[in-house]
Amino acid sequence: MTDQFAKKGEAWSARFSEPVSDLVKRYTASVFFDNRMAQVDIQGSLAHAEMLAHQGIISAADYAEIQRGMAQIKGEIESGQFEWLLDLEDVHLNIEKRLTELVGDAGKRLHTGRSRNDQVATDIRLYMRGAVDDIIGLLRDLRLALLDLAEQHADTILPGFTHMQVAQPITFGHHVLAYVEMFGRDAERMIDARKRINRLPLGAAALAGTTFPIDRLRVAKTLGFDDVCRNSLDAVSDRDFAIEFCAAAALVMTHISRMSEELVIWMSPRVGFIDIADRFCTGSSIMPQKKNPDVPELARGKTGRVNGHLIALLTLMKGQPLAYNKDNQEDKEPLFDTVDTLTDTLRIFADMARGISVKPEAMRAAALQGYATATDLADYLVKKGLPFRDAHEAVAHAVRTCVDKGCDLADLSLDDLRAFSGLIGEDVFAVLTLEGSVAARDHIGGTAPNQVRAAIAQLRKELN
Amino acid sequence: MTDQFAKKGEAWSARFSEPVSDLVKRYTASVFFDNRMAQVDIQGSLAHAEMLAHQGIISAADYAEIQRGMAQIKGEIESGQFEWLLDLEDVHLNIEKRLTELVGDAGKRLHTGRSRNDQVATDIRLYMRGAVDDIIGLLRDLRLALLDLAEQHADTILPGFTHMQVAQPITFGHHVLAYVEMFGRDAERMIDARKRINRLPLGAAALAGTTFPIDRLRVAKTLGFDDVCRNSLDAVSDRDFAIEFCAAAALVMTHISRMSEELVIWMSPRVGFIDIADRFCTGSSIMPQKKNPDVPELARGKTGRVNGHLIALLTLMKGQPLAYNKDNQEDKEPLFDTVDTLTDTLRIFADMARGISVKPEAMRAAALQGYATATDLADYLVKKGLPFRDAHEAVAHAVRTCVDKGCDLADLSLDDLRAFSGLIGEDVFAVLTLEGSVAARDHIGGTAPNQVRAAIAQLRKELN
Amino acid sequence: MTDQFAKKGEAWSARFSEPVSDLVKRYTASVFFDNRMAQVDIQGSLAHAEMLAHQGIISAADYAEIQRGMAQIKGEIESGQFEWLLDLEDVHLNIEKRLTELVGDAGKRLHTGRSRNDQVATDIRLYMRGAVDDIIGLLRDLRLALLDLAEQHADTILPGFTHMQVAQPITFGHHVLAYVEMFGRDAERMIDARKRINRLPLGAAALAGTTFPIDRLRVAKTLGFDDVCRNSLDAVSDRDFAIEFCAAAALVMTHISRMSEELVIWMSPRVGFIDIADRFCTGSSIMPQKKNPDVPELARGKTGRVNGHLIALLTLMKGQPLAYNKDNQEDKEPLFDTVDTLTDTLRIFADMARGISVKPEAMRAAALQGYATATDLADYLVKKGLPFRDAHEAVAHAVRTCVDKGCDLADLSLDDLRAFSGLIGEDVFAVLTLEGSVAARDHIGGTAPNQVRAAIAQLRKELN
Amino acid sequence: MTDQFAKKGEAWSARFSEPVSDLVKRYTASVFFDNRMAQVDIQGSLAHAEMLAHQGIISAADYAEIQRGMAQIKGEIESGQFEWLLDLEDVHLNIEKRLTELVGDAGKRLHTGRSRNDQVATDIRLYMRGAVDDIIGLLRDLRLALLDLAEQHADTILPGFTHMQVAQPITFGHHVLAYVEMFGRDAERMIDARKRINRLPLGAAALAGTTFPIDRLRVAKTLGFDDVCRNSLDAVSDRDFAIEFCAAAALVMTHISRMSEELVIWMSPRVGFIDIADRFCTGSSIMPQKKNPDVPELARGKTGRVNGHLIALLTLMKGQPLAYNKDNQEDKEPLFDTVDTLTDTLRIFADMARGISVKPEAMRAAALQGYATATDLADYLVKKGLPFRDAHEAVAHAVRTCVDKGCDLADLSLDDLRAFSGLIGEDVFAVLTLEGSVAARDHIGGTAPNQVRAAIAQLRKELN
Repeated sequence: MTDQFAKKGEAWSARFSEPVSDLVKRYTASVFFDNRMAQVDIQGSLAHAEMLAHQGIISAADYAEIQRGMAQIKGEIESGQFEWLLDLEDVHLNIEKRLTELVGDAGKRLHTGRSRNDQVATDIRLYMRGAVDDIIGLLRDLRLALLDLAEQHADTILPGFTHMQVAQPITFGHHVLAYVEMFGRDAERMIDARKRINRLPLGAAALAGTTFPIDRLRVAKTLGFDDVCRNSLDAVSDRDFAIEFCAAAALVMTHISRMSEELVIWMSPRVGFIDIADRFCTGSSIMPQKKNPDVPELARGKTGRVNGHLIALLTLMKGQPLAYNKDNQEDKEPLFDTVDTLTDTLRIFADMARGISVKPEAMRAAALQGYATATDLADYLVKKGLPFRDAHEAVAHAVRTCVDKGCDLADLSLDDLRAFSGLIGEDVFAVLTLEGSVAARDHIGGTAPNQVRAAIAQLRKELN
Repeated sequence: MTDQFAKKGEAWSARFSEPVSDLVKRYTASVFFDNRMAQVDIQGSLAHAEMLAHQGIISAADYAEIQRGMAQIKGEIESGQFEWLLDLEDVHLNIEKRLTELVGDAGKRLHTGRSRNDQVATDIRLYMRGAVDDIIGLLRDLRLALLDLAEQHADTILPGFTHMQVAQPITFGHHVLAYVEMFGRDAERMIDARKRINRLPLGAAALAGTTFPIDRLRVAKTLGFDDVCRNSLDAVSDRDFAIEFCAAAALVMTHISRMSEELVIWMSPRVGFIDIADRFCTGSSIMPQKKNPDVPELARGKTGRVNGHLIALLTLMKGQPLAYNKDNQEDKEPLFDTVDTLTDTLRIFADMARGISVKPEAMRAAALQGYATATDLADYLVKKGLPFRDAHEAVAHAVRTCVDKGCDLADLSLDDLRAFSGLIGEDVFAVLTLEGSVAARDHIGGTAPNQVRAAIAQLRKELN
Repeated sequence: MTDQFAKKGEAWSARFSEPVSDLVKRYTASVFFDNRMAQVDIQGSLAHAEMLAHQGIISAADYAEIQRGMAQIKGEIESGQFEWLLDLEDVHLNIEKRLTELVGDAGKRLHTGRSRNDQVATDIRLYMRGAVDDIIGLLRDLRLALLDLAEQHADTILPGFTHMQVAQPITFGHHVLAYVEMFGRDAERMIDARKRINRLPLGAAALAGTTFPIDRLRVAKTLGFDDVCRNSLDAVSDRDFAIEFCAAAALVMTHISRMSEELVIWMSPRVGFIDIADRFCTGSSIMPQKKNPDVPELARGKTGRVNGHLIALLTLMKGQPLAYNKDNQEDKEPLFDTVDTLTDTLRIFADMARGISVKPEAMRAAALQGYATATDLADYLVKKGLPFRDAHEAVAHAVRTCVDKGCDLADLSLDDLRAFSGLIGEDVFAVLTLEGSVAARDHIGGTAPNQVRAAIAQLRKELN
Repeated sequence: MTDQFAKKGEAWSARFSEPVSDLVKRYTASVFFDNRMAQVDIQGSLAHAEMLAHQGIISAADYAEIQRGMAQIKGEIESGQFEWLLDLEDVHLNIEKRLTELVGDAGKRLHTGRSRNDQVATDIRLYMRGAVDDIIGLLRDLRLALLDLAEQHADTILPGFTHMQVAQPITFGHHVLAYVEMFGRDAERMIDARKRINRLPLGAAALAGTTFPIDRLRVAKTLGFDDVCRNSLDAVSDRDFAIEFCAAAALVMTHISRMSEELVIWMSPRVGFIDIADRFCTGSSIMPQKKNPDVPELARGKTGRVNGHLIALLTLMKGQPLAYNKDNQEDKEPLFDTVDTLTDTLRIFADMARGISVKPEAMRAAALQGYATATDLADYLVKKGLPFRDAHEAVAHAVRTCVDKGCDLADLSLDDLRAFSGLIGEDVFAVLTLEGSVAARDHIGGTAPNQVRAAIAQLRKELN
């Protein structure tokens, strides 16, 4: 009986009359990017073998041999001694061949009742489950770091912008909490995606199930899956979980890009709201004075990478007939790179959040420019009885006058102000201060410092 | 006091010195696509007014006037009498102006304690909640229609394909169930997305909250929201829910594209597995014999549309600083078109599933071509004691011989078969039949008819 | 003989046993978006009929009747009297049916030797050729408007930024010319795309050509096409030109998004480099002081729309077997919306470029902050004999000292400066002025005012 | 004077107070993917140094030293001895530092009058120019291979499909030529993109040009650029060429995906039009009979990868303010992977085109099924005087009868046929043959064998 593995360099199996060319071998092989799944491949194989033995499909002796062989292979991989061969296509055949070298016929029995189609689907889900758990942890770390920053600046006033125009005064703590909310939703989505990742495809074999009396629920339990995939054709061809993960990841990076954009603008000298610690910045090869916020810029750029991977996977699956097609091998590189991008970016942002120095004077100076309390004046008039739309119009006239005069609302005299509405009295000036404006927005979600502190306390509770 | 609305044709407010040009007006207006939110805009305004009255911010009389005015406007819109004006930019200002015409100062008080930023965010979430509920219902209808089809063909055998090559025999019911699983996951994702849609932004006002003593939880309860958005800057700038919905929609359409691809291939004359009822097909302007599966083809094409909308929204949000920017107005058209595309496609597919005629003879003929039971022969040898890898190789030799002879495995004599392995006996021929092959895959998720029936029963229970 | 058109409400043709349902009719019809091709459809039909008559395939009398009928239809469409019917699916059948009503059998002969497949491919190319020509004109208008702005500010100094940090002084004219270059490349790409648009598919019929003795070159000449599509299968299935156009359009919008980003930042009060005329801005429903740069923000958002359409078309065409499939009908809406988006945006930007007020003092103040002339100091040292890398390091030390002292390089005394390099002499202070710095970058592409003026003159010559 | 490079491990320059962390170093470094630009970096540096010497900015001795050092570095890289250091960020600093080690102060003078911003922009253009030239060559190879295949089968008849339904008979040579046209347009687009790649950014320095008396045209000439980039801000920030290339590449892959889809369908056993040589196929780990068309499937999947890279780059550039931002570093990986994907795929497809075996009997059998000559019958009636629309309807009735009878049009008797139109005579049967049908489509672009041969001859001429 010939050895299938030994013949890989010649022809795929006895059914073939010529081997693949070197170019084809390189084009179709995945071993140099899928070997990061080696540990989960072994984990999956051991659970499969345990079930085969328990069901009497292989002998206890064979199972013991498989365990022994896999333990050795695990060690070889961890120590870097394992030799990955292009000729053996992928991580799965590389490990199985080595197992057969080590334990002979027992190794050849491991593949009983399964196929590479369900094996690879199982491995990728095991890998993704671990990656998603890491990412959920990193999102928590980042949120905790942002909560610290928010707490330090629960009272620090800066202008809130809409359309990058000064809108109303807010606190920096309140602004930072907006990102804590975004990354919180990201964590929710990762948790939701995990439910659909954590279902076991093994047992689907090539596409139709197997003729061996397997116990899929046993394997699911061993491997910690919540459930089994309930249709074998779907089990081997489903890549929804990869797309759902990349979509959730694209939202994480979208939030990172928004935060990065703000960090870059805030660090620009005309704005000057913050400084970022030198260790996250680099200089210029030609301009000796430069200190560039490289990390947020690069992170902003990496949004494109993840959006691209999402499109890669959606394009990949479009119009594919059932069940498995080789196209699916293209799922791994975008997925792995998305995992790496998220993992690195979240880690570095949690660290960087602690390297942000806030410049409260620059923030305050900016808040005093741009009529930030105009809405407060309109609200004041409403409380005096004017309908909101009329109050809005009265204040617009006042602002127009200030623009023409080159002064702020608070610089107008009471007489000047009363020209726009007779309802205005002495008490108006309290309304026009930054502190008064901020403190007045005192309801759930509002920018008042005590609301910000309450939100921080609530979030800390949820994160512990 | 001038009327802000009357002046829209001249200048935005008293703060402006010239009106927008006609081109700009057209470029920036949204009323001709956002007026589909008219009913939810009224619903949101009424809930806001009820709260204002309850909190004593407006009088009970004003609230009654607002209710009266809105009832009339609702009627005018439903009867098509309402005149939408480009000059009033969007659905919100159109309705508010009409309200002020009808009820005077009470109408001008409605906008107290809110802003267009939180108003539009509330409207879009109310609209999306309804759309998602419809889509969840349509996914259920489609799954029920597919379950009927699967049940009729729980025993109908066709070849299962991988790589579009004959792999193993399966039943058509089993194949159809793969799609029931896919659309089931789609429903799960829509339910998950709904959680994050159904949070109330109202009360965030422009970006910082309001100085009026509002009760956000009361409004949330009136409108059926699960919770309030917990940070006002995030509330007005968040469009995650739109992106998450489009990503879930892109997966629905990916599944539709896969099913469509199969329908088109199956209806191609060389395959001829099915026919689709004439009412889903069209002919040719030049070729009188043509009957084209237009509906699945067009649906397959519409995958692109939804992938495109997803990218549109991700691009839109990339790198936007907080809080609201006008860019966000671009969220509506992709979102609305995605809702329409899904709604129409799911409805038509549920109907079309009932218009599919299956041709069991063509399916059976195809299953007899391509050595579909080769795996069964290998499994047979394993059960006789050969390690799987050796069995695989022995059968590959047998297939090679059949290819050369131009016959099927079942056509080989026992002597011929025994040339590949001495373990083969008379009982092998039962294993090589299609029925035997299918029935043998008898475990959760396998293609055996009794497993298919059990899966259908279970799914029916879950859908009721 | 039955009337094919009259039966559309019942069944597609005599080959069909049931009509399409109303839902299917609506799902598959294109008439409500493809009727913008009515004029080119008539133009194409007339050229086809002229050729049929010239080749003797139809009679001169039939051709005259077709001309007469089409003239009337053209008038009906222009005057808005033409009634578009959903039952007749698309613009082509609507017009052909009306023609047959008007001129009887001559109308039924028009479709001789062609098919809807090549007819629609011809129409879309005629439409796109016109659209591309308009866009090329609008790109020219925008570039001319930007050249005027650049010329006014050939000497106005502002800081050049990299990483949004102050890098080196530049002139505003120089900065504006960067966009003139971008839109120039866009025009080149449109011209290149036009070459591949302007090839005639007519004559391909359904997919294989026709049995009538047609003269494709004659039709091409009549319609102003540069060439005919050289393979009939490719002619009816090719949508490359649509994708190539959308890719070129995505680059236009990418440039628009970059310019918009800068306009928004420049108009933000902390930067304050420019103001945009009121007619391109809108206010806030709640904040009376707001003046928001709506047009650039919305344009930036529309980048997403065009990127999305590009992905829609690429997804559409992925994996489609030859020749024509119904999927292709989905090409029109993304294409038309891309044309509209570009046309409107370019027109409004050319107008807006003339509504930008520059604030030279704010620009100058910004250029004096951030050590903009540090590179000039390094270059000075190099000219005195220091290797560049050593000069860079010496100046970095000087900047570090300035940061610590809170002063600019020009504020250091000669003695202070000489502490960093003994090569520094009295002449260094001329190098540290903004005017000196800018004037010194005096080579093709450099920021020196005379280079900017030369570039403007050259560009004006090319645009005339 | 300290050594800037030696300090990289500590801090970026004297301006910085702390070094970047290891995580940041890894996050921001590009050396492990940009070192494929080593050869063009050296080429660019040498051209720059030659110009500096010619202009008297550096001495002839320095230039000689730089040449000597670079020659040694080139050798070290080619022999694999060059040690790439993460600490030195990128390919440019790695090479410059080694140069300074080898030749001292001359090395430190190399960076005079340039910046990394224009250096990297120059390198990437030099690299892309070479890549595009390779791809143009590979497109030519593929077209030549397809021409050979087309020529062998200029007379082989198969059914032409639209909507995957049998439409009209065509020749296989004609079908293959459709792809020759597509790849021909791809080559045109690559040539157009090359024009915009081949412009020299060097001399833009950081963003504003340099104070040294450089000669940009001299460098352009040395390096074979067609022109210089005409605005320095644009020169360092432009990545249009990368996006344009990826868009052209996405079209190449779209064509590959269509061809792959057809190859996979054609090799499916129910269709069986072709076989692909074993060396492009692989087997199954479980099903011994399988021979899977892995190469076309994988290539089809790789379409997603390239679409994704295009979106990555468009997202990257969206909304970036001028001039250079660190985001741009993210351009390289998508670009390089797109180059590799195209290069490998085109090479393997040219090879695979020669490994396709055509099965003319299966093709012919398929063409005889599905009323492929119905249009010919309609055209026959038109030539006898019936208006086309009436002829179409008459033949639809005939086909309906055949569908009911289960026979082909040619199987009907003359009497049967005359029931549909009295114009039908004995000569109709010649029209209903496959050969007659194909030969009759005898005009430019038609499927008649002599037209196919003429097209092949013309294409060969153009490719030589």
